[in-house]
Amino acid sequence: MRTGVWLVGARGSVATTSIVGALALRSGLTAPIGCVTELPQVRGPALPSFSDLVFGGHDPVLTPLAKRAEALAAAGVVPGRLVAALADDLAVVEDDIRPAPTGGTPAERVARVVADLADFRRRHDLDRVVVVNVSATEPVVTPHPAHADPAALAAALDGPDEVLPPSSLYAYAAFTADCPYVDFTPSTGARLPALAALAAQRGLPYAGHDGKTGETLVKSVLAPMFAMRNLQVRSWSGINLLGGGDGATLADPAANAAKVESKQRVLGETLGYHPQGDTRIDYVEELGDFKTAWDLVTFAGFLGIGMRLEFTWHGCDSALAAPLVLDLARITAAAHAAGASGPLADLAFFFKDPLDAATHSLGEQWTRLCGFVAGLHAAAGGTDAQAG
Amino acid sequence: MRTGVWLVGARGSVATTSIVGALALRSGLTAPIGCVTELPQVRGPALPSFSDLVFGGHDPVLTPLAKRAEALAAAGVVPGRLVAALADDLAVVEDDIRPAPTGGTPAERVARVVADLADFRRRHDLDRVVVVNVSATEPVVTPHPAHADPAALAAALDGPDEVLPPSSLYAYAAFTADCPYVDFTPSTGARLPALAALAAQRGLPYAGHDGKTGETLVKSVLAPMFAMRNLQVRSWSGINLLGGGDGATLADPAANAAKVESKQRVLGETLGYHPQGDTRIDYVEELGDFKTAWDLVTFAGFLGIGMRLEFTWHGCDSALAAPLVLDLARITAAAHAAGASGPLADLAFFFKDPLDAATHSLGEQWTRLCGFVAGLHAAAGGTDAQAG
Amino acid sequence: MRTGVWLVGARGSVATTSIVGALALRSGLTAPIGCVTELPQVRGPALPSFSDLVFGGHDPVLTPLAKRAEALAAAGVVPGRLVAALADDLAVVEDDIRPAPTGGTPAERVARVVADLADFRRRHDLDRVVVVNVSATEPVVTPHPAHADPAALAAALDGPDEVLPPSSLYAYAAFTADCPYVDFTPSTGARLPALAALAAQRGLPYAGHDGKTGETLVKSVLAPMFAMRNLQVRSWSGINLLGGGDGATLADPAANAAKVESKQRVLGETLGYHPQGDTRIDYVEELGDFKTAWDLVTFAGFLGIGMRLEFTWHGCDSALAAPLVLDLARITAAAHAAGASGPLADLAFFFKDPLDAATHSLGEQWTRLCGFVAGLHAAAGGTDAQAG
Amino acid sequence: MRTGVWLVGARGSVATTSIVGALALRSGLTAPIGCVTELPQVRGPALPSFSDLVFGGHDPVLTPLAKRAEALAAAGVVPGRLVAALADDLAVVEDDIRPAPTGGTPAERVARVVADLADFRRRHDLDRVVVVNVSATEPVVTPHPAHADPAALAAALDGPDEVLPPSSLYAYAAFTADCPYVDFTPSTGARLPALAALAAQRGLPYAGHDGKTGETLVKSVLAPMFAMRNLQVRSWSGINLLGGGDGATLADPAANAAKVESKQRVLGETLGYHPQGDTRIDYVEELGDFKTAWDLVTFAGFLGIGMRLEFTWHGCDSALAAPLVLDLARITAAAHAAGASGPLADLAFFFKDPLDAATHSLGEQWTRLCGFVAGLHAAAGGTDAQAG
Ligand SMILES: NC(=O)c1ccc[n+]([C@@H]2O[C@H](COP(=O)([O-])OP(=O)(O)OC[C@H]3O[C@@H](n4cnc5c(N)ncnc54)[C@H](O)[C@@H]3O)[C@@H](O)[C@H]2O)c1
Ligand SMILES: NC(=O)c1ccc[n+]([C@@H]2O[C@H](COP(=O)([O-])OP(=O)(O)OC[C@H]3O[C@@H](n4cnc5c(N)ncnc54)[C@H](O)[C@@H]3O)[C@@H](O)[C@H]2O)c1
Ligand SMILES: NC(=O)c1ccc[n+]([C@@H]2O[C@H](COP(=O)([O-])OP(=O)(O)OC[C@H]3O[C@@H](n4cnc5c(N)ncnc54)[C@H](O)[C@@H]3O)[C@@H](O)[C@H]2O)c1
Ligand SMILES: NC(=O)c1ccc[n+]([C@@H]2O[C@H](COP(=O)([O-])OP(=O)(O)OC[C@H]3O[C@@H](n4cnc5c(N)ncnc54)[C@H](O)[C@@H]3O)[C@@H](O)[C@H]2O)c1
Ligand code: NA
Ligand code: NA
Repeated sequence: MRTGVWLVGARGSVATTSIVGALALRSGLTAPIGCVTELPQVRGPALPSFSDLVFGGHDPVLTPLAKRAEALAAAGVVPGRLVAALADDLAVVEDDIRPAPTGGTPAERVARVVADLADFRRRHDLDRVVVVNVSATEPVVTPHPAHADPAALAAALDGPDEVLPPSSLYAYAAFTADCPYVDFTPSTGARLPALAALAAQRGLPYAGHDGKTGETLVKSVLAPMFAMRNLQVRSWSGINLLGGGDGATLADPAANAAKVESKQRVLGETLGYHPQGDTRIDYVEELGDFKTAWDLVTFAGFLGIGMRLEFTWHGCDSALAAPLVLDLARITAAAHAAGASGPLADLAFFFKDPLDAATHSLGEQWTRLCGFVAGLHAAAGGTDAQAG
Repeated sequence: MRTGVWLVGARGSVATTSIVGALALRSGLTAPIGCVTELPQVRGPALPSFSDLVFGGHDPVLTPLAKRAEALAAAGVVPGRLVAALADDLAVVEDDIRPAPTGGTPAERVARVVADLADFRRRHDLDRVVVVNVSATEPVVTPHPAHADPAALAAALDGPDEVLPPSSLYAYAAFTADCPYVDFTPSTGARLPALAALAAQRGLPYAGHDGKTGETLVKSVLAPMFAMRNLQVRSWSGINLLGGGDGATLADPAANAAKVESKQRVLGETLGYHPQGDTRIDYVEELGDFKTAWDLVTFAGFLGIGMRLEFTWHGCDSALAAPLVLDLARITAAAHAAGASGPLADLAFFFKDPLDAATHSLGEQWTRLCGFVAGLHAAAGGTDAQAG
Repeated sequence: MRTGVWLVGARGSVATTSIVGALALRSGLTAPIGCVTELPQVRGPALPSFSDLVFGGHDPVLTPLAKRAEALAAAGVVPGRLVAALADDLAVVEDDIRPAPTGGTPAERVARVVADLADFRRRHDLDRVVVVNVSATEPVVTPHPAHADPAALAAALDGPDEVLPPSSLYAYAAFTADCPYVDFTPSTGARLPALAALAAQRGLPYAGHDGKTGETLVKSVLAPMFAMRNLQVRSWSGINLLGGGDGATLADPAANAAKVESKQRVLGETLGYHPQGDTRIDYVEELGDFKTAWDLVTFAGFLGIGMRLEFTWHGCDSALAAPLVLDLARITAAAHAAGASGPLADLAFFFKDPLDAATHSLGEQWTRLCGFVAGLHAAAGGTDAQAG
Repeated sequence: MRTGVWLVGARGSVATTSIVGALALRSGLTAPIGCVTELPQVRGPALPSFSDLVFGGHDPVLTPLAKRAEALAAAGVVPGRLVAALADDLAVVEDDIRPAPTGGTPAERVARVVADLADFRRRHDLDRVVVVNVSATEPVVTPHPAHADPAALAAALDGPDEVLPPSSLYAYAAFTADCPYVDFTPSTGARLPALAALAAQRGLPYAGHDGKTGETLVKSVLAPMFAMRNLQVRSWSGINLLGGGDGATLADPAANAAKVESKQRVLGETLGYHPQGDTRIDYVEELGDFKTAWDLVTFAGFLGIGMRLEFTWHGCDSALAAPLVLDLARITAAAHAAGASGPLADLAFFFKDPLDAATHSLGEQWTRLCGFVAGLHAAAGGTDAQAG
């Protein structure tokens, strides 16, 4: 099953790490640590193998992929020896990265993306292309009447107004080109009625939002722990210190707000009430891609006695995100192959702010994920041995 | 369903907090924070209500229960206003605490415990009595041939040798008196072939071992998180600083060893491999009943990149343990009423080192607990409304 | 040496804790933990004893002092047994708390304060009165031409404009009434040219600003450690979570800004460069008077190798501040008695943002403090034995 | 002033990092971060410059220095680019590393070391050689009557008994060869009456013990902070997790005991009382040269209110130690040149367990160090400009 993975933001940290990692895995240069789709409970015949994946994408920036990979190696995000060993393979991927379209009407830019996708699929003879948004976080979108339905939207796109933010423009283009779409960012993406309707019309699956990699991942197991033990969380405060490309973007208060909101959701929905306290994101350039998050939880136990838990998470954001990007591409491709359409609620396991999520508990999301993928494998009619 | 709760170690911190709390709940003086059996997913008609519970127990120490409760109030473990308000009720429980039998042969001490249990049941007209061990942690038991079967054990108990440690002697007495038995401590308790056989013969359920209240509770959600994300835990080191009665006992290296072993089990069994690092327990008198545990986890993500998580848990041990003692008494009573016999593997949720546990993941243990209790409620044929 | 201590904000947490503590010390009900002036290197004949201190103050709020003290006891800030034992003494202090003057021109309010101070001194036959500002933090002051010299200021105060913020109005009144003035808050207080000139004219000492009690205290020993070892601090980020009266005030971004600025000064001035990172203050009501501060320091060592230090401070703000308020009152009274005038730069040890400070290193500030107080003792011509 | 630096344990992590660093500094490839002797308050004409230093040493291990340097680069302890750039210089130092003498009587081994030192001095035409012990930590020494005076010791060394541990044998040889001696380890070294007498006879200075680089460094500023504020430390507990060569040695309980004892001394001596709690050292291979130390301090403030401070130190041990090794060699050489003899108490700043230390406060140690070095510069009669 030859599968295209089209990365919006193809020269960013997450994208570059994903590409380097997939190439290294394909060549057997590394073990699949961090890859959920390689766990015994998830792997199987329905998923395209790492060698089935072909990468391309859009980015406005022109820095060569190899340069970005070297910078990531210097920052300790990927091992330098892999970047050196994969120089040729990176050059091949380089040829499939297109400049992000600019200028013209939104409709003209959509057409450009659709053409790039079609060209990519044809040249590589791909069974399908999954579009994954890993570009910079956008501010919260401004509402517009054309967001309500596909026809109104198609009309508006032809005008001069920026009716859609880039993430949604890419989702629109993906659906138009018959590609499933995954949003790894907190941006709007496919989360508009008009886009949901378009995906439904064309029978396409999509997934999102906002990869769950650090503080929120930990929250999604700790909050259920408090809930299962009937302990009363009184306050939950957190601070995220991060540098890197994404950190700089989030220094912009508008983008920050979108991210913080998706980070706090897990608490209210898991506990059934809103503890005091906020989550903050601060940009500290010197931390680079290594994020430090600190959380303080105060809670009451039996007879109201006060207690506390604090944790410090020191993670490499792109290294946490990249294997999930590969997991999402593989599973979404398999879902598309199996005829799934609409929001993939069973992929909530991967997201901070999951579409249509029934639960924010990581354990319950895991059970659903395993069930969903087992269904795909069953449909694929195969056995583990066929997967290779 | 009038239910006796017989606490071995009835004047200890955990026991006293459990009694004060149950009396306060019965009188409506407090909310059931920390009580798992009061969560919507667990509560129901099969469980005895707090007013159905009658307390008694054994302890070698003679300090009045009210004195112990006041000391706990001064230490911030229970609210002083509750201890004051419950003075009369505590005096009533005081009358049901018996000195731990000493002297004579083991068989004579067993007979004494059996007589105390029978007397307690009769005087209070109880449907059943659940024996819960919350006494001081014992050293690891010395093997003895008579541990192999009930007949050999009965014979050996008649001799002068200390063939069983106290926790097992109490388990033996409980089974002989037709009482279910719960071991909240890491001691041997019912974990000997002869005792398992005895429980089976008499159709009695039992549960254990070692209440899961602090560092191990957190581990039982964090370790599955690493596993579900295919992150490779390289080292997991921890230190527990605690004062209080239990802390002093654990300063004894032999008792400490038993506890540490049960604390590390969760890692190996959840991850499928043993990360480097140890867990330590240090006695720091000044910390009293408030334990501070600090854990450092180092792990590898995608492409082998190293990351870290550390947490500090600052909990009041007795306040964490007490509601679970009540939960265990209620559920074990219901299981006994429903005819359950043998080790209650579905209560693994409550224990560091659960009997016959299929999993150490708190989330999976929760699912099993909910299923098990739902079965009891169904069998009780009632509805929530009948519970009170 | 009968010494009045006039507290601006007399019913606040810091003031109430200071009063309860001084009364308890006077009655021998507690040991002087936290009192710098009771250390062997500092104590001596020049300082008024705890029994020499008489308390009064201004506050717009009317809650009785005993009520505030009980609330602090309930919150764990002062021991309940002390509040009970000191009920009569608190009632005596109650009689010396006056409503903060409102209405009229600034000059009229100044006159009111001056009259209250004179009355207090006369009624208690005091040798002197030290005015200490422990009222709510104010926003950064708006510049005004009258801040430049005493004559212009006197003229402006007679007009209808709010030419001075309350902290400066109190400083003006203190100087007018021949009282030394201490500013324990980050507010403007005496930090205006006109007020400095006024203090000089009248030969009065003053001290400030902003008591150093938590995160900044720790910074003032850790930053010199990095400097003395020639380690290069790359980033220093911090977050302060606090409830209590002061927390609520600081939730106001303007007051917050004043405080944050004084918190970061120690770094730049100690290290000689400005590391990346910010300090934040967040209000979390449930934390009450117990503040949790977390700081992350990243630094480079030999050959540029990156390392990290993080600390969590969990302190009771009012309990940390109160003994310093007493220390400052005692030392400033002794300085006044010895004829000192102008800013007391040698008291930098006590402040986050010290007046005319030569250094932000706690160790160096300590050396200066000890030298300064030794001079006062020498001038007092006495020996420790005379101190009483 | 051509100065030999003879490293006992010359192929260890600390030694290799010191050598790589000194070569890099000499070549201008790096800045002197972490070098105390390059601070404005310390640098000056009395100290040999980095280009004046010539390295040699003993080690039983044969791994080439360049190999050790590469391993340290792979582990992130030194930058790989420096190791590559310094290959030739490392080969030169390689020629001056001698196998640690084995076999024969102690006296024969001493003679061997003396000969190696004399040869090193002669071949490089050195003004003096400072011997610095950076070899593996030894167990606490067994007392022996010959430790009492030089004559008895000389006699005993001729016999077959191992009357001195290696660190003391090297000190004996250093003094015999007229070399100053620095002990960077917690081992016995020169700390025996016979060796002190020998140093005095020969007019030689020496310094030690146990470089202060991590947890104890932080303690030496935090403990004085509590003391200066009259806060009462109730407990201070710590755990050090470390891998690396030294970590493996410390896994041996006997060596561990020596180290732990020197770590706790700072508390008792700074505070004037012994708080509860212990310091632990655990070996976690996977942490390599990066040590994580966690400390919890509980303390009482005003009116006995309990508070807490915890810190986590994540440092690269060899990178912290190496610049201090260079500092010590430079200052001890200058002290020798100036005619100093006996224990150099003014170098306490560098040590966990300093010889004849008047104080454990880092700030006070700093003041003494600056004074001592200023004296050396004054004696050197020169100016900063002459130093190079
Ligand atoms: N790393 C994580 O753990 C994590 C977790 C959740 C979400 N995310 C999200 O992933 C995204 C990428 O993160 P990153 O660290 O790689 O950031 P980055 O800044 O390194 O990369 C973003 C890339 O997107 C490109 N880009 C910007 N606008 C574009 C457009 N209109 N079209 C195409 N490309 C565009 C940029 O040029 C850049 O190369 C962010 O939105 C981040 O919030 C990351
Ligand atoms: N508190 C927790 O979070 C927690 C969690 C898991 C397990 N536990 C276990 O619970 C037990 C009780 O803890 P605690 O803090 O109440 O300790 P504790 O020391 O306060 O109480 C133990 C009591 O047992 C009594 N006792 C000792 N020997 C006895 C005997 N032979 N028969 C009857 N009573 C005896 C003692 O006199 C004492 O009153 C310990 O074994 C502890 O390990 C506690
Ligand atoms: N607690 C600490 O560790 C610490 C450290 C440094 C500085 N401070 C400063 O000390 C001050 C007091 O803190 P707190 O916790 O007691 O606050 P608080 O809110 O409990 O008390 C402030 C009191 O000031 C009174 N007040 C307000 N405006 C006034 C006015 N115009 N005149 C007279 N009184 C007035 C209020 O009514 C209140 O009673 C704050 O400015 C705080 O920033 C405290
Ligand atoms: N790194 C720090 O922060 C720090 C701080 C204080 C003290 N120290 C001490 O410094 C010493 C060195 O630490 P390291 O990390 O380099 O250890 P390491 O194990 O890497 O190096 C020790 C070296 O000593 C050599 N050695 C052993 N016995 C010897 C002998 N008899 N003669 C000569 N050499 C011998 C070993 O072969 C090895 O090469 C240790 O004693 C450690 O406790 C280190
Ligand atoms: Na912490
Ligand atoms: Na921490």
